[in-house]
Amino acid sequence: MGAEWDQHVAVTRLGAGSYAAELTDGWRVGGGINGGYQLAVVGTALSKVVPGRPDPLAISAYFLSAATHGPATVDARVLREGGSVATLAADLRQGDQARLSVLATYGDLAGLPDDVRTTATPPDLPPVEECVSNRHAPEEVRSVAPLMERFDMRFDPRHVGWVVGQPSGNGEMQAWFRLVEDREPDPMSLLMVVDALPPVTYDLGMAGWAPTLELTAHVRACPAPGWLQVRHATRNVAGGMFEEDCEVWDSSGRLVAQSRQLARVPR
Amino acid sequence: MGAEWDQHVAVTRLGAGSYAAELTDGWRVGGGINGGYQLAVVGTALSKVVPGRPDPLAISAYFLSAATHGPATVDARVLREGGSVATLAADLRQGDQARLSVLATYGDLAGLPDDVRTTATPPDLPPVEECVSNRHAPEEVRSVAPLMERFDMRFDPRHVGWVVGQPSGNGEMQAWFRLVEDREPDPMSLLMVVDALPPVTYDLGMAGWAPTLELTAHVRACPAPGWLQVRHATRNVAGGMFEEDCEVWDSSGRLVAQSRQLARVPR
Repeated sequence: MGAEWDQHVAVTRLGAGSYAAELTDGWRVGGGINGGYQLAVVGTALSKVVPGRPDPLAISAYFLSAATHGPATVDARVLREGGSVATLAADLRQGDQARLSVLATYGDLAGLPDDVRTTATPPDLPPVEECVSNRHAPEEVRSVAPLMERFDMRFDPRHVGWVVGQPSGNGEMQAWFRLVEDREPDPMSLLMVVDALPPVTYDLGMAGWAPTLELTAHVRACPAPGWLQVRHATRNVAGGMFEEDCEVWDSSGRLVAQSRQLARVPR
Repeated sequence: MGAEWDQHVAVTRLGAGSYAAELTDGWRVGGGINGGYQLAVVGTALSKVVPGRPDPLAISAYFLSAATHGPATVDARVLREGGSVATLAADLRQGDQARLSVLATYGDLAGLPDDVRTTATPPDLPPVEECVSNRHAPEEVRSVAPLMERFDMRFDPRHVGWVVGQPSGNGEMQAWFRLVEDREPDPMSLLMVVDALPPVTYDLGMAGWAPTLELTAHVRACPAPGWLQVRHATRNVAGGMFEEDCEVWDSSGRLVAQSRQLARVPR
C-alpha cells in the first residue's frame, strides 16, 4: 500500500459494482472534503469495473452535497462496453446522502497511438526553488485545510499577491505540484490535481470557498515521474458563476490532463 | 409551434420523468444524427422536470451509440433539488439501444445576478456579408448532411481553406450562426449550436467524422436575439483524440455558452 495517497483512495469490493471507501479528514478544506480527492476515490472504484479499461479518459462529476470524513460507498454501473472504451456511471454516497454523481469513459492510456500534435504551450513557471511553497502558509490556514499537508505545491510568485491582499486581477494561478512521500503521479491522481489549487477567484480578489457545480476532466496521457505543472484560469466570471479551466503538464512537457469546472463565486 | 426548430425538439410526457421525442432526419449528418441536436432534445425534456428550473446551467453528455431518425424516449430523474438549482440525470434511448447518458444542473438564468466580468474576447469575425455561407456547399455535401438546411452559417474565410484542400493548420474555425425562419436563439438551442460546426480537425487537414466521446456545455446567459458568433478551437490533438472548445457569443457581445468535447480524430 506504500504511500498515504494509495491508502486514501483505496476501495474494497462489496459486491457487483459496489465498493466501500473511507474519506479521510486529511483531504478536508474548510467545512468539506476536497472534490478532486472525492473524484479520485470514485475514479479508483471505476477502474476496477471493466477489465483492461483502467484509465479515466473523460470523467464528469456533478456535486450534490458536501462530503464529510468517514465511510462512503461507490455504486457503479456499465452503460456501454465496446470497442476500446467503456462508458460508466457511478454515485458516491455517505449513508443516505448522495455526494456526487459521475459519468465517465474509461480506456487504456497505454494502448493509445503515440501521436502528439499539441499546440498548447506549458506554463511559464519560474524554477521550483524560486516559487512560493505551501509550507509557508500560516498555521491558521493549515489548521482549517489539512489537505495542504498532502502535497508540496510551489506557487508562481506572480499569482500569490492575494495572500497579502494584492491579487493580480488576471484570474490566473499556476504552481508546481508533487504528492508527499515522492508518490509519483498517475492517471488517477490527476483527477485530484485538477482541483487541488485554491479557487482561481482568489487571484481576482474574491476570497473564500467557491462551490463546484460540475467538473469534467480529460486524462490524455500517463504522466511521467516528477513534478507536475498546474495552471488554472478563468475567463468568464458572470451571473454569480465562473468557469475554471485547468491544465496539468508532466515533467516530460506533455499536456496530460485538462479540466473545466463551473463554480459559484465566493459569497 | 411555429418554427421547425420547436417541432424538432418537442417532447411529449409519457409519465413521471418519461418523455417521447421524434429525432428528425433533418438533423442527419453522414450516418448519424447530430449530437448537439440530440442533446437539445434531452435538454428540452429536462427543462420540464423541475418547475422553475428551466435552463441547463451545465450539462454533460456521454455518447453511447449512433442515433437514427425516428422515435426516441428520454427518461429523467432528479438527483437533488435544493437552493436555486436542481441536479438531474437522463438517458436517451431508441428501442433497446441507449444513445446518450446525461447529467445536468438546471436553474433559472433570468434569476441570476447581473454581474459580468468576462475577460474572454469575442471572435474577430469579418462582417456577415464577407463570410462564406453554408449555402455554397456543393450538392453532394448537402445531400449527406441535411442539417445544413437547418441554419444559416457564415464561415470566417480564413478557416475554410480545407474546402479546397488548404487547411490553415491552426485548429480553429469560426462562423456566424442563425437558425432558419429567423428562429431566435434561446438557452436550449445553444446546446445544439456548440456542436453544429464541422469538426475543428478539418482545419488541421484531418477530414471526416470525429466521433464525440463526451461533451459538456455551460449555458451562462439567455442569448439576445440576432446572429450568434461561434468559435471552435483545439489545442491538444494527441493519442488519437482531441479536445474541441467552443464559445458562443450573442449579438449583444455576451459570452452565452462555453463547451468542451473529447472526440476521436477522424480515421
